[in-house]
Amino acid sequence: MRCYHPAVAVGSSNDFDLVILGSGTGGYSAAFRAAQLGLRTALVERAKIGGTCLHVGCIPTKAMLESAEFYARVLHAADFGVRAENPGFDYAAIVKRREGIVERLHKGLQSLVKKNGIEYVAGRGRLEGGKKVRVALGEGGERILQGTDVILATGSRVKSLPGLEPDGERVVTSDDLMRLDRAAESIVIVGAGAVGVEFASLYADLGVKVTLLEYLPSLVPLEDAEIGKELERAFRRRGIEVMTNARFDPAAVGRGDGGVRLAVGPEGGERKELRAEMLLVAVGRAPVTDDVGLETTRAKVDARGFVETDRFMRTAEPHFYAIGDIVPTFALAHVAAHEGIVAVERIAGTDPEPIDYDEMPRATFCRPQVATLGKSEQECAAAGIAVKVGKFPFLANGKALIGGEYEGFAKVIARADDGRVVGVHLIGPHVSDFIGEASVATLLEATAWEMGGAVHPHPTLSEALGEAALAVDGRAINF
Amino acid sequence: MRCYHPAVAVGSSNDFDLVILGSGTGGYSAAFRAAQLGLRTALVERAKIGGTCLHVGCIPTKAMLESAEFYARVLHAADFGVRAENPGFDYAAIVKRREGIVERLHKGLQSLVKKNGIEYVAGRGRLEGGKKVRVALGEGGERILQGTDVILATGSRVKSLPGLEPDGERVVTSDDLMRLDRAAESIVIVGAGAVGVEFASLYADLGVKVTLLEYLPSLVPLEDAEIGKELERAFRRRGIEVMTNARFDPAAVGRGDGGVRLAVGPEGGERKELRAEMLLVAVGRAPVTDDVGLETTRAKVDARGFVETDRFMRTAEPHFYAIGDIVPTFALAHVAAHEGIVAVERIAGTDPEPIDYDEMPRATFCRPQVATLGKSEQECAAAGIAVKVGKFPFLANGKALIGGEYEGFAKVIARADDGRVVGVHLIGPHVSDFIGEASVATLLEATAWEMGGAVHPHPTLSEALGEAALAVDGRAINF
Repeated sequence: MRCYHPAVAVGSSNDFDLVILGSGTGGYSAAFRAAQLGLRTALVERAKIGGTCLHVGCIPTKAMLESAEFYARVLHAADFGVRAENPGFDYAAIVKRREGIVERLHKGLQSLVKKNGIEYVAGRGRLEGGKKVRVALGEGGERILQGTDVILATGSRVKSLPGLEPDGERVVTSDDLMRLDRAAESIVIVGAGAVGVEFASLYADLGVKVTLLEYLPSLVPLEDAEIGKELERAFRRRGIEVMTNARFDPAAVGRGDGGVRLAVGPEGGERKELRAEMLLVAVGRAPVTDDVGLETTRAKVDARGFVETDRFMRTAEPHFYAIGDIVPTFALAHVAAHEGIVAVERIAGTDPEPIDYDEMPRATFCRPQVATLGKSEQECAAAGIAVKVGKFPFLANGKALIGGEYEGFAKVIARADDGRVVGVHLIGPHVSDFIGEASVATLLEATAWEMGGAVHPHPTLSEALGEAALAVDGRAINF
Repeated sequence: MRCYHPAVAVGSSNDFDLVILGSGTGGYSAAFRAAQLGLRTALVERAKIGGTCLHVGCIPTKAMLESAEFYARVLHAADFGVRAENPGFDYAAIVKRREGIVERLHKGLQSLVKKNGIEYVAGRGRLEGGKKVRVALGEGGERILQGTDVILATGSRVKSLPGLEPDGERVVTSDDLMRLDRAAESIVIVGAGAVGVEFASLYADLGVKVTLLEYLPSLVPLEDAEIGKELERAFRRRGIEVMTNARFDPAAVGRGDGGVRLAVGPEGGERKELRAEMLLVAVGRAPVTDDVGLETTRAKVDARGFVETDRFMRTAEPHFYAIGDIVPTFALAHVAAHEGIVAVERIAGTDPEPIDYDEMPRATFCRPQVATLGKSEQECAAAGIAVKVGKFPFLANGKALIGGEYEGFAKVIARADDGRVVGVHLIGPHVSDFIGEASVATLLEATAWEMGGAVHPHPTLSEALGEAALAVDGRAINF
């Protein structure tokens, strides 16, 4: 482990202990931890520090969702004994608030770069081998940075379906939606992963007519099947039209002044024509690895463009690491941050644990929220792991009744042999706020009995998680 | 361990494996676990199943707080880009909603009594020695129940100060406030423990002029000193008048048609006259142990009326247990439930762990919320435990900014020698929902480094807790 010098002197030298290319959540988290561990660190960014998460992803969408959910609640204010006449919303004001939050956090990151003594290099970086980054500087000219170690963290971009080119007006991406100053009257959303269901929820709360199409048989198809089913029920109740197993011809989507039209139906079945003002393509993101000089390194890149690493984020090129959305793991900001931190700790020699993706929580901020960790029942079955399952519904949770949102459940999956928790699946109110408990529990190899034996305060939503853990052994109290 | 028979036959016999006197959260939780473990169980209740928590405590107050906080947010709806004209509230409707929630949970408990095959005995029970309970039945007559083991769980009642008798109109208790169908115009609250600060927050949100008096130097005086300071700042910003070190003569409180008046000042200092429509006495609760026949047992009762037990809730009388608000531990519903469960598991011979009160979370639902576990810095100092402390402010947490409430902080206290977490102190938005993570962590003897290393999803409020844990070792990322 190298010595710790908190205020790293930054000079004009181009030699660094560590050069990080890309300053999204993964890149900047790696940089800050590197500085804490005494590494002279350069952080190269062609756009703004904070990346997708801060500028067009997690933060702005959650800010919009906050306003939309609040508006939806105001529509039912009388249920709470509260009067709010002539309820409405001002989309431009929602956007302005969102931008204010993004800017505040952006300024925060800029000050943390200074505080940590990071050399921030604004410009487009390109690898020249695994230890050198040539940066075309934003202000003109270039700078060649040499790193004892280099981390690639260039992130991802929205992608579409073959034949369905977004135009930013009729056929749009999530990036486009973050640029618009109004909501559509109606929208077809293609893809019911995290991005698709969050926008479906957001727009439904704002009164937009939403049709949600998913190719696979279930919403949030990577999650436990019961989660997808519960979400589908909840969405239907809210008036969202949901079509799973949906098939349509991306190249045949019609666009005109009136909006888009497409013929959608089940595989081999009859198709019906949908019309909407916009179509959102939410079919995932592609890694930004095509023009960063990866071919000058020995790193292995798969057919989809993802960089292959071990669980310390090392590529096949010595001293060259890859983290975040460019590696084929969960494309989530906190996972990128953790990957960056593990890479840096490995570089600094502090002997980190290798990453176990079964300990990484996932959160989706639709209404009801989805927050999960570890394996689904289906994955356990596929892996031949015998399990016991406990469930607890939020309608038996006092705080959920108090909040007026009590759809959903907590589900805990434990190994049948030793009771160890291998999956936690939550759908319901505010569940993203307490899935972190499952992270701690699985990191410490807790059994369901221990998780349920840990006392949860009353009356809180987290009691549902404790009860689900007890239910694994038939010992829930309040259901 | 006795054999498990899920459907316990209930007959006219008066012989039970277990008789539980009192059906608050502690009593009914013990009963349900006892049934799961195959014990023939009788549950005696003179009022309604659910006790203080369900009928006049946790649940109804939190329901009121939910409405009040929502109203306060509606007043600032424009901040979220939401329009809500002429905002107001209907106190009677808030009360009606509250009662609906209580009744729904009450029905739920009644059905769980049936499901678990518990013999529910409605009437006033009195001990005759440690194994017999004589019940004056609600419908007349009496029934004498014999238990192999007996648990006393008679709970607590509001108390007042000597010379200050509540009258239910001018000088009131929290019970009285749950009976009223309107809010006062102004209120003086005596006592800034959990009950006092929750009512202060509730009424302030409803526009009531609130003066909060605390005898000790700090609000929530049992909590870490920094929590009390932060809460005081937040309350003052919200327009609540806060007086700590407050002295007045309880016997000299004037009552008239205009309300109450009292002269209050610091110890030995000048007093000023306060006038308000009501005075709430929130100075704690007294155990209901004075007329339950404890004198017929060998159980030890302290001068204040609390029953002494070991950490399995055993009294000095063999086979006779005491749990909940009648034992001198945290008077919290979830602690009572845990005490009841440990007592029952001890009775059933399933070898439970003795209770460690440093693993019991505490939650107070004022705004900002307070949620804590384990020792304060002051308690560590008094106990001679050398500690390291990490803090993280919610204003550096993206989700808190999004929610528009970002006062407060997360604070983690770890032992200096081995890093084990000994205290977690949260004040801020929704913190009651994720203090459960600290329960799991301390149950599993986690270090701060492990708690911080557990990945928290982004963007969530729980990230603040993870960052505070990392800050213990100077390793927070976003501050």
